[in-house]
Amino acid sequence: MASTSSRSAALPKSRSSHGGASDELLADLVVANHILFDQGIVDGFGHVSVRHDQDPARFLLARNMAPGQVTPDDILEFDLEGAAVKPDGPPVYLERFIHSEIYRARPDAMAIVHSHSHSIVPLSISKTARLRAVFHMAGFIGEEAPLFEIRHTAGPATDLLISNPGLGRALAQCCGSHNIVLMRGHGSTVIGGSLRQAIYRAVYAELNARYQCEAMGLGEVVYLTKEEGEAAVRTVEQQSNRAWNLWKEQAAQRRREA
Amino acid sequence: MASTSSRSAALPKSRSSHGGASDELLADLVVANHILFDQGIVDGFGHVSVRHDQDPARFLLARNMAPGQVTPDDILEFDLEGAAVKPDGPPVYLERFIHSEIYRARPDAMAIVHSHSHSIVPLSISKTARLRAVFHMAGFIGEEAPLFEIRHTAGPATDLLISNPGLGRALAQCCGSHNIVLMRGHGSTVIGGSLRQAIYRAVYAELNARYQCEAMGLGEVVYLTKEEGEAAVRTVEQQSNRAWNLWKEQAAQRRREA
Amino acid sequence: MASTSSRSAALPKSRSSHGGASDELLADLVVANHILFDQGIVDGFGHVSVRHDQDPARFLLARNMAPGQVTPDDILEFDLEGAAVKPDGPPVYLERFIHSEIYRARPDAMAIVHSHSHSIVPLSISKTARLRAVFHMAGFIGEEAPLFEIRHTAGPATDLLISNPGLGRALAQCCGSHNIVLMRGHGSTVIGGSLRQAIYRAVYAELNARYQCEAMGLGEVVYLTKEEGEAAVRTVEQQSNRAWNLWKEQAAQRRREA
Amino acid sequence: MASTSSRSAALPKSRSSHGGASDELLADLVVANHILFDQGIVDGFGHVSVRHDQDPARFLLARNMAPGQVTPDDILEFDLEGAAVKPDGPPVYLERFIHSEIYRARPDAMAIVHSHSHSIVPLSISKTARLRAVFHMAGFIGEEAPLFEIRHTAGPATDLLISNPGLGRALAQCCGSHNIVLMRGHGSTVIGGSLRQAIYRAVYAELNARYQCEAMGLGEVVYLTKEEGEAAVRTVEQQSNRAWNLWKEQAAQRRREA
Repeated sequence: MASTSSRSAALPKSRSSHGGASDELLADLVVANHILFDQGIVDGFGHVSVRHDQDPARFLLARNMAPGQVTPDDILEFDLEGAAVKPDGPPVYLERFIHSEIYRARPDAMAIVHSHSHSIVPLSISKTARLRAVFHMAGFIGEEAPLFEIRHTAGPATDLLISNPGLGRALAQCCGSHNIVLMRGHGSTVIGGSLRQAIYRAVYAELNARYQCEAMGLGEVVYLTKEEGEAAVRTVEQQSNRAWNLWKEQAAQRRREA
Repeated sequence: MASTSSRSAALPKSRSSHGGASDELLADLVVANHILFDQGIVDGFGHVSVRHDQDPARFLLARNMAPGQVTPDDILEFDLEGAAVKPDGPPVYLERFIHSEIYRARPDAMAIVHSHSHSIVPLSISKTARLRAVFHMAGFIGEEAPLFEIRHTAGPATDLLISNPGLGRALAQCCGSHNIVLMRGHGSTVIGGSLRQAIYRAVYAELNARYQCEAMGLGEVVYLTKEEGEAAVRTVEQQSNRAWNLWKEQAAQRRREA
Repeated sequence: MASTSSRSAALPKSRSSHGGASDELLADLVVANHILFDQGIVDGFGHVSVRHDQDPARFLLARNMAPGQVTPDDILEFDLEGAAVKPDGPPVYLERFIHSEIYRARPDAMAIVHSHSHSIVPLSISKTARLRAVFHMAGFIGEEAPLFEIRHTAGPATDLLISNPGLGRALAQCCGSHNIVLMRGHGSTVIGGSLRQAIYRAVYAELNARYQCEAMGLGEVVYLTKEEGEAAVRTVEQQSNRAWNLWKEQAAQRRREA
Repeated sequence: MASTSSRSAALPKSRSSHGGASDELLADLVVANHILFDQGIVDGFGHVSVRHDQDPARFLLARNMAPGQVTPDDILEFDLEGAAVKPDGPPVYLERFIHSEIYRARPDAMAIVHSHSHSIVPLSISKTARLRAVFHMAGFIGEEAPLFEIRHTAGPATDLLISNPGLGRALAQCCGSHNIVLMRGHGSTVIGGSLRQAIYRAVYAELNARYQCEAMGLGEVVYLTKEEGEAAVRTVEQQSNRAWNLWKEQAAQRRREA
């Protein structure tokens, strides 16, 4: 019938902006946006991407908007130059090069969260303290998270944004094989081997930072050993679906109330 | 018809307290009041004004009430003496002179927020620490925000309120060309080139203060350079509609639940 | 009619536990309980009382229960011995002697709030820091709030509760003519010249404590002078209805959602 | 009738996983899970158990899931080896040995809460500060809470989890006759003589930790004497139903809104 065929015809069109990525991946990316907002990791700013599940040289990311308001129609497909695949689309995030350059440098990176979460920023502007794993839920932080000082790459007069491929490459190089990199005066970028792992890590990096700063106010702190961090990642992160399921329910509840 | 003409007749009357300012400006000022409350920048106290869009010698401000409860009917029009244009109106804010004198001194000021936001007050009472830009979202703070010590103007026995034009002038003078001025034992006043910019700045001044204080607890802090702050204002504040749209939705949601 | 007369007959009965106090006072006391919970000043513990408006030798206080759940039927009338006027009533608060002895010692006390609010407790257990007015909304705190150390009265093995008239008298004596007294390891008691003033003061004492502690972490602090505190009380506390109206609406909203 | 008999037949089956424990105990354990989440003591992780009321060699604990989502059907019965009594059940918590070994070592333990509550973790990683009772609501903490350093038992390369009976025994031994034990880089475990007491203690241990850390930032702190702590337990904890009733209502309200 007319209505059916018009719906069929419409489907490819509505999907064309994310190039055939699976419906499940797309739905999870929308949920990930909502969880980050609901858990207080992002406010109107910050973003989360996932590598395309059919084409590792592409990734999915929302258009320029607040993560808490993202719908499936807002997801765009990007290449590793940081360019939207579909031309003439809506405005895009200034800092999409964080994502493109880390996906290029790190084949194991399957999802990336960039945020200004509240307890991370103070550690990004301290001259002496560095983010280190203190909490068994955040072993992935390791012995010391790298800090990207944009002045070393681009001098003392930037806007601190990763707004071109060169700055993205410098950030990726600073990150190296770590799964979190702090950005001075700005926030952090977190890498996961899956979308759920990246979300999990963004939330628990924030908690680790909070606990570390509070403990530093009391005196000397016991940090996780390298081996403790690695062991904790192996067992604790296997449980991360438990957190995802809870956070997904919470975020959906808050949206239903809206 | 009778009903139409009575509505027409009523319209000018209901608008007479804000002197022909555009409906859009009026609606935005109501939303701005709700956002400030919803984002925790004001509680029962604090206020936001906007310069009249038809007459730069006037501004709009709510009557004396909690910002979270303001409706369009509560908006009044003031002149640069701090007097309500329409006589015999409802009680007005004691500190309307903050607004009148800054609008007089600063032709570029299009909107003003006065608040006691939680992380700003501690910096207003510290003998040694000053609010400085540390976060790329708050470059407008600059190298050091001025602090208004009312004792220097009016001695050691005031109620700390800006309750007359003279105190308003002293505050405006202390503020100078800055876009934020702290008030000792009291809070801050923030200036924007538009209503949305003023709201954006009030929210991110609070976050910058929070991050700065937490980082100071860890040791020495890296502040933004003057040039970093200026560059960040140029690019980041262009994105402030993204925050406004989110905050507007959140505030409206909370009110619908009420 | 039958139904009317039975309602008439029932009214005195339902009111007998608060001895003819005005309906308005009773309703305000219920609202005050809800506001204190909604504003985070009390949790399951803490209590608020008001002096009887027909008999200054009596006061109204809820039965032993969480303030957030109080209804008009839960309000009881007490005498200045701390005894419930109506015998065989429900269980009462262990610490009702805080109220009875302060009403006895302070004829100007019209309402009393006892709480363990979050920023007050740390100041109650510090050997060196004392709560002092730093914020113009809390001038009533004065130059230094007294601290009641129960060990001085009752030795080093009490449960810290004001559970008999003697301890209540010692607390009232320590409080003197101040309008707030801290209790070591326990919380505070706040006095108002009206119910609304007592609620206002309980909320802003908490904020003043928070700001003071945060500022002390940054270095030396500027405190209000005695005269600034007194001047601020005179003007700012005249505005306290603005806060009451907002808090009442918020508390009612939260209860409607329940 | 068919429907009645099939319901009758179904009942024992649906209950078989918790071996005839009373309906009241089961319902209270579900509520306890929801309260811990609603009060912010647990997030997606942490767990609460209660000793079986018909068989002291068994205990009830949810399957591996977020506490805030637990329903009666998710409750399983365990023996003191930490094994689920019913074979082939759903996945179980990795750290069930916290519960099994403490129930074995402490016949007075009737309920146990394991959590990573926010103010406890910093105290678990400080080299110098220890959790001590400072607040009359948390006298049960005593003069100093023991801290379990898993490295002393299992070396510097564990995942910090209590994932086998041996580690559970070491934790129970470290806890001794105390009612709270901190776990380095991890959280705490709290013991109650009833389910309500354990929940009460988990909430107020968190508050005591918060107040203690904040006061330590101000200088020296006054701790409760051993006798004050004991006296406070005797009177204050008799009031813990007041908190339970409030928290139960709050948690149910939040779930109804979902």
